[in-house]
Amino acid sequence: MTILLTMTGTDAKSWKQQLEALTPDHPILIWPSDEPLDAVKYALAWNSPPGLLARCTNLEVIFSLGAGVDHLISDPDLPDIPIVRIVDPNLTMRMTEYVVFHVLLHHRRFHDYDRVQKAKKWEILHQPGANEVRVGVMGMGALGSDAACKLRDLGFQVAGWSNSPKDFPGIESFAGADQLTPFLNRTDILVVLLPHTPETEGILNKKLFASLAQDGVGQGPILINAGRGKLQIDAEILAALDENVLHAASLDVFEQEPLPEDSPLWSHERATLTPHIASESDNRALTKYIAEQIKRHEAGLALENVIDNTKGY
Amino acid sequence: MTILLTMTGTDAKSWKQQLEALTPDHPILIWPSDEPLDAVKYALAWNSPPGLLARCTNLEVIFSLGAGVDHLISDPDLPDIPIVRIVDPNLTMRMTEYVVFHVLLHHRRFHDYDRVQKAKKWEILHQPGANEVRVGVMGMGALGSDAACKLRDLGFQVAGWSNSPKDFPGIESFAGADQLTPFLNRTDILVVLLPHTPETEGILNKKLFASLAQDGVGQGPILINAGRGKLQIDAEILAALDENVLHAASLDVFEQEPLPEDSPLWSHERATLTPHIASESDNRALTKYIAEQIKRHEAGLALENVIDNTKGY
Repeated sequence: MTILLTMTGTDAKSWKQQLEALTPDHPILIWPSDEPLDAVKYALAWNSPPGLLARCTNLEVIFSLGAGVDHLISDPDLPDIPIVRIVDPNLTMRMTEYVVFHVLLHHRRFHDYDRVQKAKKWEILHQPGANEVRVGVMGMGALGSDAACKLRDLGFQVAGWSNSPKDFPGIESFAGADQLTPFLNRTDILVVLLPHTPETEGILNKKLFASLAQDGVGQGPILINAGRGKLQIDAEILAALDENVLHAASLDVFEQEPLPEDSPLWSHERATLTPHIASESDNRALTKYIAEQIKRHEAGLALENVIDNTKGY
Repeated sequence: MTILLTMTGTDAKSWKQQLEALTPDHPILIWPSDEPLDAVKYALAWNSPPGLLARCTNLEVIFSLGAGVDHLISDPDLPDIPIVRIVDPNLTMRMTEYVVFHVLLHHRRFHDYDRVQKAKKWEILHQPGANEVRVGVMGMGALGSDAACKLRDLGFQVAGWSNSPKDFPGIESFAGADQLTPFLNRTDILVVLLPHTPETEGILNKKLFASLAQDGVGQGPILINAGRGKLQIDAEILAALDENVLHAASLDVFEQEPLPEDSPLWSHERATLTPHIASESDNRALTKYIAEQIKRHEAGLALENVIDNTKGY
């Protein structure tokens, strides 16, 4: 009946506390631990050490913390049991907050105004209106399409790129490998919310950055990655910033997380970093959802939002 | 036939250049100038010196640059001729950009994350979801109501306060002096877009700040003033910040503009300042609008958006 919390880089204790209140019948184990693992029936996983879940021989359900499941699927010894993805409207709302905020941060020239304030200078800086700026959203799933619609409503010219064409009013749709370059060519601010799959790994590289619009009315192409770190080549983002192929970047994710302390990204004046918190949700909403799924499972009902292993999302 | 540009603190030369292209028949004069003023038929005014417009004895129309006209009405010698206000959808769009950006700046704890980045620390900071945060918009005219609706769509709990009750779906309406305190009591982030009138002068003072919600889930009450500088008492904002009655403030306007270099606001770590640019529009859209109004006037058609002197807006 035990619930195992195997979450690297997260405060497992606060999860334990909240989950205990909701599922008092289930002992909770925080990894690493010397306790035997054969009592473990449920696991809440985030960047769990490869092979660990295979050692839980009576494991019935894995809960993936976060919207993506690439952090689990990369484990070659992952047991063949249902993986439940957390689908929470709160996640979408928070991701849209992040995306809208970072688009406006660059659009409204916040870093420049911050410098002007520090110099105590009353100086007006030119900026175009939202209606003159083209935002492109890569990945038009639940998260990408919500952010795209909110940006459209603020006046931006928005297009989306995804595997299959999408139909959102006022949002231009580009689909498939063939339409990637035309999509990039018309994009001033690129927002990335793709899942991590073999096809998308390393897609954010210097060749892609060089295809972004060169004729925009703003300061130059902007990259905002709130998808997955493995989509990007950190070194090529740095080179693109230094060569002004990218004017600026907001990054919530990185090839390696936590971002190593010696990464030059930390101190790049045109890189705005956050520690994978774009859609960091309140534990309360997530623990409630997990407790509900456990109740469903023990009542013999089907689990919800079980992922499709063949697609990887 | 002459057009006079009397605009303090603005780059009149770029206005002249753009207007010349649109109204080639009209000579353009930039104040200050030694030229006689009796040829002046139109004036474009922004913080014009009091008494100057009265000296233009053949003046027929005053164009007020910006959404408010308080900067004109304060002139005791203002001639009794039509004042045309610039009503431009671009102004609303840009003001909403500013408001949504600054609400998210505080909500997403940008200044805290900026400090964490500078310290090269991978540190997750708690923040509530938009749905747990109550935004209050003072002034529900064209600008205030548009910003309020966009914030509601992002998930915030939004209320508006204005002279008369307003009916926007999902936005709680408070009206009149009696409902000001209940409105403030439920407000975590206060957005101010009021006009400057005798009733609103100095309304943003320590008594008002002390009425803001003390039970919010965020860091503490936030003030965002993008209305008029004369609404606020700069010294009382500073005191409220220092005493944590206000957690932080975004100010686009000030009692005196440009803000004097010795104001302690410039360097207050929880004050985010911009030089009255919240809805700074592209001159192109505005000069086009003014040239159209001049054409209408000379064709004997009625001017549009003439202000009501009795209301002051």
